[in-house]
Amino acid sequence: MNLKKIVEQIKIKKSFLCIGLDTDIQNIPPHLKNIDSAIFEFNKQIIDATNKFAIAYKLNIAFYECMGYKGWVMLEKTVEYLKANYPDIFLIADAKRGDIGNTSKKYAQTFFETLNFDAITVSPYMGEDSVTPFLSYKDKFIILLALTSNKGSNDFQLIKDENGVRLFEHILKKSQNWGNKDNTMYVVGATKPEMFKEVRKIIPDHFLLVPGIGAQGGDLGETVKNGINKNCGLIVNSSRAIIYADNTNKFAEKAAFEAKKIQEEMEYYLEKYCNFM
Amino acid sequence: MNLKKIVEQIKIKKSFLCIGLDTDIQNIPPHLKNIDSAIFEFNKQIIDATNKFAIAYKLNIAFYECMGYKGWVMLEKTVEYLKANYPDIFLIADAKRGDIGNTSKKYAQTFFETLNFDAITVSPYMGEDSVTPFLSYKDKFIILLALTSNKGSNDFQLIKDENGVRLFEHILKKSQNWGNKDNTMYVVGATKPEMFKEVRKIIPDHFLLVPGIGAQGGDLGETVKNGINKNCGLIVNSSRAIIYADNTNKFAEKAAFEAKKIQEEMEYYLEKYCNFM
Repeated sequence: MNLKKIVEQIKIKKSFLCIGLDTDIQNIPPHLKNIDSAIFEFNKQIIDATNKFAIAYKLNIAFYECMGYKGWVMLEKTVEYLKANYPDIFLIADAKRGDIGNTSKKYAQTFFETLNFDAITVSPYMGEDSVTPFLSYKDKFIILLALTSNKGSNDFQLIKDENGVRLFEHILKKSQNWGNKDNTMYVVGATKPEMFKEVRKIIPDHFLLVPGIGAQGGDLGETVKNGINKNCGLIVNSSRAIIYADNTNKFAEKAAFEAKKIQEEMEYYLEKYCNFM
Repeated sequence: MNLKKIVEQIKIKKSFLCIGLDTDIQNIPPHLKNIDSAIFEFNKQIIDATNKFAIAYKLNIAFYECMGYKGWVMLEKTVEYLKANYPDIFLIADAKRGDIGNTSKKYAQTFFETLNFDAITVSPYMGEDSVTPFLSYKDKFIILLALTSNKGSNDFQLIKDENGVRLFEHILKKSQNWGNKDNTMYVVGATKPEMFKEVRKIIPDHFLLVPGIGAQGGDLGETVKNGINKNCGLIVNSSRAIIYADNTNKFAEKAAFEAKKIQEEMEYYLEKYCNFM
Protein backbone atom coordinates (compact mmCIF):
# COMPACT_ATOMS: atom_id res chain seq x y z
CA MET A 1 0.00 0.00 0.00
CA ASN A 2 1.29 3.50 -0.77
CA LEU A 3 0.97 6.85 0.98
CA LYS A 4 -1.61 8.20 -1.46
CA LYS A 5 -3.92 5.29 -0.70
CA ILE A 6 -3.55 5.78 3.06
CA VAL A 7 -4.45 9.48 2.78
CA GLU A 8 -7.40 8.58 0.55
CA GLN A 9 -8.72 6.17 3.17
CA ILE A 10 -8.37 8.81 5.88
CA LYS A 11 -10.55 11.13 3.76
CA ILE A 12 -13.12 8.47 2.98
CA LYS A 13 -13.47 7.13 6.52
CA LYS A 14 -12.85 10.47 8.25
CA SER A 15 -10.64 8.54 10.58
CA PHE A 16 -6.97 7.93 11.31
CA LEU A 17 -7.65 5.17 13.78
CA CYS A 18 -5.57 2.00 13.99
CA ILE A 19 -7.01 -0.85 16.02
CA GLY A 20 -4.46 -2.99 17.84
CA LEU A 21 -5.19 -6.69 17.81
CA ASP A 22 -3.24 -7.56 20.97
CA THR A 23 -5.44 -10.60 21.29
CA ASP A 24 -4.91 -12.57 24.49
CA ILE A 25 -6.72 -15.85 25.17
CA GLN A 26 -7.02 -14.77 28.83
CA ASN A 27 -9.05 -11.70 27.91
CA ILE A 28 -11.45 -12.84 25.22
CA PRO A 29 -15.11 -13.53 26.08
CA PRO A 30 -15.70 -16.88 27.80
CA HIS A 31 -18.08 -18.14 25.10
CA LEU A 32 -15.21 -18.02 22.55
CA LYS A 33 -12.44 -19.51 24.67
CA ASN A 34 -13.11 -23.16 24.01
CA ILE A 35 -13.70 -23.11 20.28
CA ASP A 36 -11.02 -24.01 17.73
CA SER A 37 -9.26 -20.96 16.36
CA ALA A 38 -10.60 -18.84 19.25
CA ILE A 39 -8.09 -16.06 18.62
CA PHE A 40 -8.92 -15.87 14.92
CA GLU A 41 -12.66 -15.99 15.60
CA PHE A 42 -12.32 -13.10 18.07
CA ASN A 43 -10.22 -11.08 15.59
CA LYS A 44 -12.65 -11.77 12.74
CA GLN A 45 -15.65 -10.52 14.70
CA ILE A 46 -13.75 -7.44 15.91
CA ILE A 47 -12.60 -6.67 12.37
CA ASP A 48 -16.05 -7.15 10.82
CA ALA A 49 -17.62 -4.86 13.42
CA THR A 50 -14.99 -2.10 13.51
CA ASN A 51 -13.47 -1.78 10.02
CA LYS A 52 -15.76 1.11 9.01
CA PHE A 53 -14.15 3.26 11.69
CA ALA A 54 -10.48 2.32 11.23
CA ILE A 55 -7.98 2.71 8.42
CA ALA A 56 -5.41 0.35 9.92
CA TYR A 57 -5.02 -2.73 12.10
CA LYS A 58 -1.88 -3.48 14.06
CA LEU A 59 -1.11 -7.03 15.09
CA ASN A 60 1.14 -7.24 18.12
CA ILE A 61 3.27 -10.27 17.26
CA ALA A 62 4.15 -11.14 20.88
CA PHE A 63 0.54 -12.08 21.58
CA TYR A 64 0.63 -14.68 18.79
CA GLU A 65 4.18 -15.98 19.31
CA CYS A 66 3.48 -16.77 22.94
CA MET A 67 1.21 -19.59 21.74
CA GLY A 68 3.99 -21.10 19.64
CA TYR A 69 3.25 -22.38 16.13
CA LYS A 70 -0.49 -22.39 16.87
CA GLY A 71 -0.27 -18.66 17.46
CA TRP A 72 1.44 -18.25 14.10
CA VAL A 73 -1.44 -20.07 12.47
CA MET A 74 -3.84 -17.55 14.07
CA LEU A 75 -1.63 -14.70 12.87
CA GLU A 76 -1.55 -16.02 9.31
CA LYS A 77 -5.31 -16.59 9.26
CA THR A 78 -5.98 -13.06 10.53
CA VAL A 79 -3.73 -11.47 7.92
CA GLU A 80 -5.29 -13.54 5.14
CA TYR A 81 -8.79 -12.62 6.30
CA LEU A 82 -8.00 -8.91 6.41
CA LYS A 83 -6.29 -8.89 3.01
CA ALA A 84 -9.08 -10.92 1.36
CA ASN A 85 -12.00 -8.97 2.79
CA TYR A 86 -10.69 -5.49 3.52
CA PRO A 87 -7.91 -4.80 0.99
CA ASP A 88 -7.98 -1.04 1.73
CA ILE A 89 -6.86 -1.55 5.32
CA PHE A 90 -3.24 -0.65 6.15
CA LEU A 91 -1.86 -3.68 7.94
CA ILE A 92 0.92 -3.24 10.50
CA ALA A 93 3.10 -5.94 12.10
CA ASP A 94 4.04 -4.57 15.51
CA ALA A 95 7.18 -6.66 15.82
CA LYS A 96 9.98 -4.22 16.79
CA ARG A 97 12.53 -6.26 14.85
CA GLY A 98 16.07 -5.26 13.85
CA ASP A 99 19.29 -7.28 13.54
CA ILE A 100 22.42 -7.54 11.39
CA GLY A 101 21.77 -7.25 7.65
CA ASN A 102 21.38 -10.92 6.70
CA THR A 103 18.98 -11.42 9.62
CA SER A 104 16.90 -8.28 9.06
CA LYS A 105 16.52 -9.50 5.48
CA LYS A 106 14.89 -12.67 6.86
CA TYR A 107 12.59 -10.65 9.12
CA ALA A 108 11.59 -8.51 6.12
CA GLN A 109 10.86 -11.69 4.18
CA THR A 110 8.77 -12.95 7.13
CA PHE A 111 6.49 -9.94 7.39
CA PHE A 112 6.37 -8.70 3.78
CA GLU A 113 6.39 -12.02 1.88
CA THR A 114 5.45 -15.00 4.09
CA LEU A 115 2.87 -12.74 5.74
CA ASN A 116 1.50 -9.97 3.57
CA PHE A 117 1.83 -7.00 5.97
CA ASP A 118 2.08 -3.45 4.63
CA ALA A 119 4.35 -2.23 7.42
CA ILE A 120 6.51 -3.39 10.29
CA THR A 121 7.75 -1.59 13.39
CA VAL A 122 11.57 -1.63 13.49
CA SER A 123 14.00 -0.95 16.35
CA PRO A 124 16.78 1.45 15.33
CA TYR A 125 19.42 0.49 17.91
CA MET A 126 21.63 -1.48 15.50
CA GLY A 127 21.72 1.29 12.86
CA GLU A 128 21.59 1.53 9.09
CA ASP A 129 22.31 -2.02 7.92
CA SER A 130 19.74 -3.38 10.39
CA VAL A 131 17.02 -1.13 8.93
CA THR A 132 17.66 -0.87 5.17
CA PRO A 133 16.81 -4.51 4.29
CA PHE A 134 13.20 -3.66 5.14
CA LEU A 135 13.27 -0.74 2.68
CA SER A 136 13.86 -2.75 -0.49
CA TYR A 137 10.15 -3.59 -0.88
CA LYS A 138 7.90 -1.40 -3.05
CA ASP A 139 4.75 -0.06 -1.35
CA LYS A 140 5.82 -1.35 2.07
CA PHE A 141 6.71 0.77 5.10
CA ILE A 142 8.99 0.58 8.07
CA ILE A 143 7.78 2.31 11.22
CA LEU A 144 10.93 3.17 13.12
CA LEU A 145 10.86 3.53 16.91
CA ALA A 146 11.65 7.14 17.78
CA LEU A 147 9.97 8.16 21.04
CA THR A 148 7.97 5.32 22.56
CA SER A 149 4.97 5.61 24.86
CA ASN A 150 6.34 3.71 27.87
CA LYS A 151 8.07 5.03 30.99
CA GLY A 152 11.37 3.41 29.96
CA SER A 153 11.50 5.70 26.92
CA ASN A 154 13.12 8.22 29.28
CA ASP A 155 16.08 5.92 29.96
CA PHE A 156 17.95 6.28 26.67
CA GLN A 157 15.81 7.98 24.02
CA LEU A 158 16.17 11.44 25.59
CA ILE A 159 19.95 11.31 26.19
CA LYS A 160 21.54 14.47 24.80
CA ASP A 161 24.84 14.49 22.90
CA GLU A 162 27.54 17.18 23.24
CA ASN A 163 25.43 19.51 21.07
CA GLY A 164 22.18 18.96 22.92
CA VAL A 165 20.74 16.66 20.23
CA ARG A 166 18.71 13.86 21.81
CA LEU A 167 19.00 10.23 20.73
CA PHE A 168 15.52 10.11 19.17
CA GLU A 169 16.40 13.24 17.18
CA HIS A 170 19.55 11.52 15.88
CA ILE A 171 17.35 8.66 14.74
CA LEU A 172 14.86 10.95 13.00
CA LYS A 173 17.69 12.79 11.24
CA LYS A 174 19.95 9.91 10.26
CA SER A 175 17.16 7.65 9.04
CA GLN A 176 16.16 10.24 6.46
CA ASN A 177 19.29 9.18 4.55
CA TRP A 178 18.00 5.60 4.45
CA GLY A 179 14.40 6.08 3.36
CA ASN A 180 11.81 8.76 2.74
CA LYS A 181 8.21 9.59 3.60
CA ASP A 182 7.00 7.04 1.05
CA ASN A 183 8.51 4.09 2.89
CA THR A 184 9.24 5.31 6.42
CA MET A 185 7.00 6.26 9.34
CA TYR A 186 7.95 6.76 13.00
CA VAL A 187 6.57 5.65 16.35
CA VAL A 188 5.92 8.63 18.64
CA GLY A 189 3.95 7.94 21.81
CA ALA A 190 0.84 9.91 22.78
CA THR A 191 2.07 9.93 26.37
CA LYS A 192 4.46 12.78 25.45
CA PRO A 193 2.15 15.09 23.46
CA GLU A 194 4.42 18.12 23.89
CA MET A 195 7.21 16.29 22.03
CA PHE A 196 5.28 16.20 18.76
CA LYS A 197 6.31 19.80 18.08
CA GLU A 198 9.98 18.81 18.41
CA VAL A 199 9.43 15.81 16.15
CA ARG A 200 7.62 17.90 13.51
CA LYS A 201 10.58 20.32 13.31
CA ILE A 202 12.67 17.45 11.92
CA ILE A 203 10.09 15.46 9.97
CA PRO A 204 7.17 17.74 9.02
CA ASP A 205 5.85 15.43 6.29
CA HIS A 206 6.25 11.86 7.54
CA PHE A 207 3.43 9.81 8.97
CA LEU A 208 3.64 8.93 12.66
CA LEU A 209 2.20 5.84 14.30
CA VAL A 210 0.98 6.94 17.70
CA PRO A 211 0.45 4.38 20.46
CA GLY A 212 -0.47 5.26 24.01
CA ILE A 213 -4.01 6.62 23.99
CA GLY A 214 -6.55 4.60 25.99
CA ALA A 215 -5.06 2.15 28.50
CA GLN A 216 -1.70 3.98 28.52
CA GLY A 217 -3.26 7.37 29.29
CA GLY A 218 -2.22 9.57 26.33
CA ASP A 219 -4.50 12.41 25.21
CA LEU A 220 -5.79 12.40 21.63
CA GLY A 221 -6.59 16.12 21.44
CA GLU A 222 -3.14 17.25 22.58
CA THR A 223 -1.47 14.72 20.27
CA VAL A 224 -3.40 15.95 17.26
CA LYS A 225 -2.90 19.62 18.03
CA ASN A 226 0.87 19.21 18.07
CA GLY A 227 1.35 16.39 15.58
CA ILE A 228 -1.09 16.74 12.68
CA ASN A 229 0.10 17.90 9.24
CA LYS A 230 -1.50 18.72 5.89
CA ASN A 231 -2.00 15.04 5.01
CA CYS A 232 -3.11 14.28 8.57
CA GLY A 233 0.25 12.51 9.09
CA LEU A 234 -1.01 10.56 12.09
CA ILE A 235 -2.20 7.02 12.58
CA VAL A 236 -3.35 6.73 16.18
CA ASN A 237 -3.59 3.30 17.73
CA SER A 238 -5.92 2.01 20.40
CA SER A 239 -5.84 -1.65 21.42
CA ARG A 240 -7.20 -2.70 24.80
CA ALA A 241 -9.76 0.11 25.18
CA ILE A 242 -11.50 -1.07 21.99
CA ILE A 243 -11.06 -4.83 21.74
CA TYR A 244 -11.70 -5.54 25.43
CA ALA A 245 -14.49 -2.98 25.91
CA ASP A 246 -16.88 -5.82 26.70
CA ASN A 247 -16.57 -9.46 27.66
CA THR A 248 -19.99 -10.85 26.66
CA ASN A 249 -21.44 -12.01 23.34
CA LYS A 250 -21.88 -8.31 22.55
CA PHE A 251 -18.11 -7.70 22.59
CA ALA A 252 -17.84 -6.88 18.88
CA GLU A 253 -20.79 -4.48 18.98
CA LYS A 254 -19.28 -2.72 22.01
CA ALA A 255 -15.86 -2.58 20.32
CA ALA A 256 -17.53 -0.93 17.32
CA PHE A 257 -19.19 1.57 19.65
CA GLU A 258 -15.83 2.50 21.19
CA ALA A 259 -14.13 2.69 17.78
CA LYS A 260 -16.93 4.91 16.46
CA LYS A 261 -16.51 7.31 19.41
CA ILE A 262 -12.82 7.73 18.58
CA GLN A 263 -13.57 8.04 14.85
CA GLU A 264 -16.05 10.86 15.55
CA GLU A 265 -13.50 12.69 17.64
CA MET A 266 -10.99 12.22 14.81
CA GLU A 267 -13.51 13.56 12.27
CA TYR A 268 -13.83 16.70 14.38
CA TYR A 269 -10.04 17.16 14.44
CA LEU A 270 -9.68 16.52 10.71
CA GLU A 271 -12.27 19.21 10.01
CA LYS A 272 -10.62 21.60 12.44
CA TYR A 273 -7.00 21.16 11.36
CA CYS A 274 -6.91 19.61 7.87
CA ASN A 275 -8.14 21.56 4.89
CA PHE A 276 -8.65 18.44 2.79
CA MET A 277 -11.98 17.47 4.38
CA MET B 1 20.46 -22.86 33.77
CA ASN B 2 22.57 -20.84 36.19
CA LEU B 3 25.97 -19.20 35.93
CA LYS B 4 27.72 -21.89 37.95
CA LYS B 5 26.57 -24.55 35.52
CA ILE B 6 27.76 -22.54 32.54
CA VAL B 7 31.23 -22.09 34.06
CA GLU B 8 31.33 -25.81 34.90
CA GLN B 9 30.61 -26.69 31.29
CA ILE B 10 33.35 -24.36 30.08
CA LYS B 11 35.79 -26.22 32.33
CA ILE B 12 34.58 -29.67 31.26
CA LYS B 13 34.51 -28.98 27.54
CA LYS B 14 37.47 -26.58 27.53
CA SER B 15 35.39 -24.44 25.27
CA PHE B 16 33.32 -21.28 25.31
CA LEU B 17 31.92 -21.82 21.83
CA CYS B 18 28.33 -21.11 20.89
CA ILE B 19 27.13 -22.50 17.57
CA GLY B 20 24.59 -20.38 15.74
CA LEU B 21 21.81 -22.32 14.08
CA ASP B 22 20.95 -19.70 11.43
CA THR B 23 19.53 -22.50 9.36
CA ASP B 24 18.43 -21.44 5.88
CA ILE B 25 16.71 -23.86 3.49
CA GLN B 26 18.69 -22.24 0.63
CA ASN B 27 22.00 -23.22 2.20
CA ILE B 28 21.50 -26.74 3.49
CA PRO B 29 22.90 -29.71 1.53
CA PRO B 30 20.81 -30.70 -1.51
CA HIS B 31 20.20 -34.25 -0.24
CA LEU B 32 18.26 -32.84 2.75
CA LYS B 33 16.24 -30.19 0.98
CA ASN B 34 13.31 -32.30 -0.10
CA ILE B 35 12.68 -34.28 3.05
CA ASP B 36 10.00 -33.40 5.60
CA SER B 37 11.38 -31.40 8.51
CA ALA B 38 14.53 -30.61 6.49
CA ILE B 39 15.51 -27.76 8.81
CA PHE B 40 15.14 -29.89 11.92
CA GLU B 41 17.00 -32.81 10.33
CA PHE B 42 19.89 -30.49 9.43
CA ASN B 43 19.96 -29.01 12.96
CA LYS B 44 19.83 -32.46 14.56
CA GLN B 45 22.79 -33.75 12.59
CA ILE B 46 24.80 -30.58 13.27
CA ILE B 47 24.00 -30.77 16.99
CA ASP B 48 24.85 -34.47 17.26
CA ALA B 49 28.18 -33.91 15.53
CA THR B 50 29.27 -30.69 17.24
CA ASN B 51 27.93 -30.72 20.82
CA LYS B 52 31.19 -32.03 22.30
CA PHE B 53 32.91 -28.81 21.25
CA ALA B 54 30.26 -26.26 22.18
CA ILE B 55 28.67 -25.15 25.46
CA ALA B 56 25.83 -23.21 23.82
CA TYR B 57 23.62 -23.11 20.75
CA LYS B 58 21.97 -19.94 19.52
CA LEU B 59 18.88 -20.11 17.36
CA ASN B 60 18.40 -17.07 15.19
CA ILE B 61 14.62 -16.71 15.26
CA ALA B 62 14.37 -14.80 11.95
CA PHE B 63 15.50 -17.89 10.03
CA TYR B 64 12.55 -19.86 11.43
CA GLU B 65 9.90 -17.13 11.35
CA CYS B 66 10.50 -16.52 7.66
CA MET B 67 8.89 -19.91 6.97
CA GLY B 68 5.76 -18.97 8.91
CA TYR B 69 4.16 -21.47 11.28
CA LYS B 70 6.11 -24.33 9.66
CA GLY B 71 9.31 -22.59 10.73
CA TRP B 72 7.97 -22.36 14.29
CA VAL B 73 7.40 -26.10 14.24
CA MET B 74 11.08 -26.58 13.26
CA LEU B 75 12.11 -24.19 16.03
CA GLU B 76 10.07 -26.05 18.65
CA LYS B 77 11.37 -29.44 17.49
CA THR B 78 14.98 -28.23 17.65
CA VAL B 79 14.57 -26.82 21.17
CA GLU B 80 12.89 -30.03 22.37
CA TYR B 81 15.62 -32.17 20.83
CA LEU B 82 18.39 -30.14 22.45
CA LYS B 83 16.73 -30.08 25.88
CA ALA B 84 15.94 -33.82 25.80
CA ASN B 85 19.34 -35.00 24.59
CA TYR B 86 21.82 -32.36 25.73
CA PRO B 87 20.43 -30.79 28.92
CA ASP B 88 23.82 -29.22 29.80
CA ILE B 89 23.75 -27.01 26.71
CA PHE B 90 23.00 -23.30 27.27
CA LEU B 91 20.24 -22.46 24.81
CA ILE B 92 19.92 -18.94 23.44
CA ALA B 93 17.02 -17.42 21.48
CA ASP B 94 18.59 -14.75 19.29
CA ALA B 95 15.41 -12.73 18.98
CA LYS B 96 16.37 -9.11 19.82
CA ARG B 97 12.94 -8.48 21.33
CA GLY B 98 11.84 -5.54 23.50
CA ASP B 99 8.52 -3.70 23.77
CA ILE B 100 6.26 -2.01 26.36
CA GLY B 101 5.87 -3.99 29.59
CA ASN B 102 2.72 -6.01 28.84
CA THR B 103 4.18 -7.01 25.46
CA SER B 104 7.69 -7.88 26.70
CA LYS B 105 5.94 -10.08 29.25
CA LYS B 106 4.40 -12.02 26.34
CA TYR B 107 7.78 -12.31 24.60
CA ALA B 108 9.29 -13.63 27.85
CA GLN B 109 6.47 -16.16 28.06
CA THR B 110 7.16 -17.17 24.44
CA PHE B 111 10.85 -17.91 24.86
CA PHE B 112 11.03 -19.04 28.50
CA GLU B 113 7.74 -20.98 28.82
CA THR B 114 6.25 -21.92 25.43
CA LEU B 115 9.80 -22.62 24.24
CA ASN B 116 12.25 -23.68 26.91
CA PHE B 117 15.18 -21.36 26.11
CA ASP B 118 17.72 -20.44 28.81
CA ALA B 119 18.35 -16.96 27.44
CA ILE B 120 17.07 -14.37 24.99
CA THR B 121 18.78 -11.43 23.32
CA VAL B 122 16.94 -8.20 24.17
CA SER B 123 17.08 -4.75 22.56
CA PRO B 124 17.51 -1.96 25.16
CA TYR B 125 16.10 0.97 23.16
CA MET B 126 12.77 1.15 25.03
CA GLY B 127 14.38 1.13 28.50
CA GLU B 128 13.70 -0.44 31.86
CA ASP B 129 10.08 -1.58 31.63
CA SER B 130 10.78 -3.21 28.25
CA VAL B 131 13.60 -5.29 29.78
CA THR B 132 12.57 -6.20 33.33
CA PRO B 133 9.68 -8.56 32.40
CA PHE B 134 12.34 -10.96 31.09
CA LEU B 135 14.14 -10.87 34.46
CA SER B 136 11.38 -12.38 36.57
CA TYR B 137 12.34 -15.95 35.62
CA LYS B 138 14.71 -17.94 37.84
CA ASP B 139 17.76 -19.43 36.11
CA LYS B 140 17.04 -17.60 32.86
CA PHE B 141 19.15 -14.85 31.29
CA ILE B 142 18.67 -11.78 29.18
CA ILE B 143 21.48 -10.90 26.81
CA LEU B 144 21.18 -7.18 26.30
CA LEU B 145 22.49 -5.55 23.12
CA ALA B 146 25.36 -3.26 24.01
CA LEU B 147 27.84 -2.97 21.15
CA THR B 148 26.81 -5.04 18.16
CA SER B 149 29.08 -6.52 15.49
CA ASN B 150 27.59 -4.82 12.42
CA LYS B 151 28.66 -1.63 10.65
CA GLY B 152 25.47 0.16 11.75
CA SER B 153 26.55 -0.17 15.39
CA ASN B 154 28.51 3.06 14.76
CA ASP B 155 25.33 5.00 13.97
CA PHE B 156 23.89 5.36 17.47
CA GLN B 157 25.67 3.08 19.96
CA LEU B 158 28.80 5.26 20.08
CA ILE B 159 27.05 8.63 20.44
CA LYS B 160 28.58 10.54 23.37
CA ASP B 161 26.55 12.54 25.87
CA GLU B 162 27.60 15.91 27.35
CA ASN B 163 30.01 14.09 29.68
CA GLY B 164 31.58 11.89 27.01
CA VAL B 165 29.64 8.77 28.06
CA ARG B 166 28.67 6.71 25.04
CA LEU B 167 25.21 5.23 24.56
CA PHE B 168 26.37 1.61 24.98
CA GLU B 169 28.08 2.66 28.24
CA HIS B 170 24.79 4.17 29.48
CA ILE B 171 23.15 0.83 28.75
CA LEU B 172 25.83 -1.16 30.59
CA LYS B 173 25.57 1.16 33.59
CA LYS B 174 21.82 1.63 33.86
CA SER B 175 20.94 -2.02 33.28
CA GLN B 176 22.94 -2.99 36.37
CA ASN B 177 20.08 -1.51 38.39
CA TRP B 178 17.67 -3.90 36.69
CA GLY B 179 19.50 -7.21 36.96
CA ASN B 180 22.86 -8.69 37.91
CA LYS B 181 25.47 -11.07 36.59
CA ASP B 182 23.28 -14.04 37.48
CA ASN B 183 20.53 -13.05 35.05
CA THR B 184 22.10 -10.58 32.62
CA MET B 185 24.71 -10.91 29.88
CA TYR B 186 25.60 -8.44 27.12
CA VAL B 187 26.19 -8.64 23.38
CA VAL B 188 29.57 -7.19 22.43
CA GLY B 189 30.74 -7.80 18.87
CA ALA B 190 34.14 -9.32 18.03
CA THR B 191 34.48 -6.81 15.21
CA LYS B 192 35.50 -4.15 17.78
CA PRO B 193 38.05 -6.10 19.90
CA GLU B 194 39.60 -2.93 21.33
CA MET B 195 36.27 -2.01 22.91
CA PHE B 196 36.27 -4.99 25.25
CA LYS B 197 38.64 -3.12 27.58
CA GLU B 198 36.14 -0.27 27.82
CA VAL B 199 33.31 -2.71 28.43
CA ARG B 200 35.25 -4.56 31.14
CA LYS B 201 35.83 -1.31 33.05
CA ILE B 202 32.07 -1.13 33.63
CA ILE B 203 31.14 -4.81 33.88
CA PRO B 204 34.20 -6.85 34.92
CA ASP B 205 32.20 -9.88 36.03
CA HIS B 206 29.32 -10.31 33.58
CA PHE B 207 29.31 -12.82 30.76
CA LEU B 208 29.41 -11.45 27.22
CA LEU B 209 27.91 -13.08 24.15
CA VAL B 210 30.29 -12.31 21.31
CA PRO B 211 29.10 -12.55 17.70
CA GLY B 212 31.18 -11.55 14.73
CA ILE B 213 34.01 -14.06 14.40
CA GLY B 214 34.04 -16.11 11.19
CA ALA B 215 31.90 -14.71 8.37
CA GLN B 216 31.84 -11.21 9.94
CA GLY B 217 35.64 -11.01 10.25
CA GLY B 218 36.21 -10.56 14.00
CA ASP B 219 39.42 -11.93 15.58
CA LEU B 220 39.12 -14.49 18.39
CA GLY B 221 42.59 -13.91 19.88
CA GLU B 222 42.15 -10.15 20.20
CA THR B 223 38.66 -10.58 21.61
CA VAL B 224 39.84 -13.00 24.27
CA LYS B 225 42.88 -10.95 25.22
CA ASN B 226 40.73 -7.91 25.97
CA GLY B 227 37.51 -9.53 27.12
CA ILE B 228 38.25 -12.63 29.18
CA ASN B 229 37.79 -12.62 32.98
CA LYS B 230 38.38 -15.04 35.86
CA ASN B 231 35.29 -17.13 35.00
CA CYS B 232 36.09 -16.89 31.28
CA GLY B 233 33.13 -14.49 30.97
CA LEU B 234 32.86 -15.00 27.22
CA ILE B 235 30.56 -17.06 25.02
CA VAL B 236 31.80 -16.67 21.46
CA ASN B 237 29.43 -17.46 18.64
CA SER B 238 30.13 -18.79 15.19
CA SER B 239 27.28 -19.59 12.81
CA ARG B 240 27.90 -19.75 9.09
CA ALA B 241 31.60 -20.74 9.27
CA ILE B 242 30.62 -23.93 11.12
CA ILE B 243 27.19 -24.99 9.92
CA TYR B 244 27.82 -24.27 6.23
CA ALA B 245 31.43 -25.52 6.14
CA ASP B 246 30.38 -28.22 3.68
CA ASN B 247 27.42 -28.85 1.42
CA THR B 248 27.63 -32.64 0.86
CA ASN B 249 26.52 -35.61 2.95
CA LYS B 250 29.65 -35.00 5.02
CA PHE B 251 28.34 -31.58 6.20
CA ALA B 252 27.97 -32.59 9.86
CA GLU B 253 31.43 -34.16 10.00
CA LYS B 254 32.95 -31.05 8.43
CA ALA B 255 31.01 -28.81 10.86
CA ALA B 256 32.43 -30.84 13.74
CA PHE B 257 35.92 -30.40 12.29
CA GLU B 258 35.48 -26.62 12.17
CA ALA B 259 33.97 -26.51 15.67
CA LYS B 260 36.84 -28.61 17.03
CA LYS B 261 39.39 -26.22 15.51
CA ILE B 262 37.78 -23.30 17.36
CA GLN B 263 37.46 -25.34 20.58
CA GLU B 264 41.19 -26.14 20.48
CA GLU B 265 42.03 -22.48 20.04
CA MET B 266 39.73 -21.70 22.97
CA GLU B 267 41.42 -24.38 25.11
CA TYR B 268 44.73 -22.67 24.45
CA TYR B 269 43.33 -19.30 25.54
CA LEU B 270 41.68 -20.75 28.64
CA GLU B 271 45.00 -22.24 29.70
CA LYS B 272 46.81 -19.03 28.95
CA TYR B 273 44.46 -16.57 30.65
CA CYS B 274 42.23 -18.47 33.10
CA ASN B 275 43.70 -20.04 36.21
CA PHE B 276 40.78 -22.42 36.64
CA MET B 277 41.94 -24.92 34.02
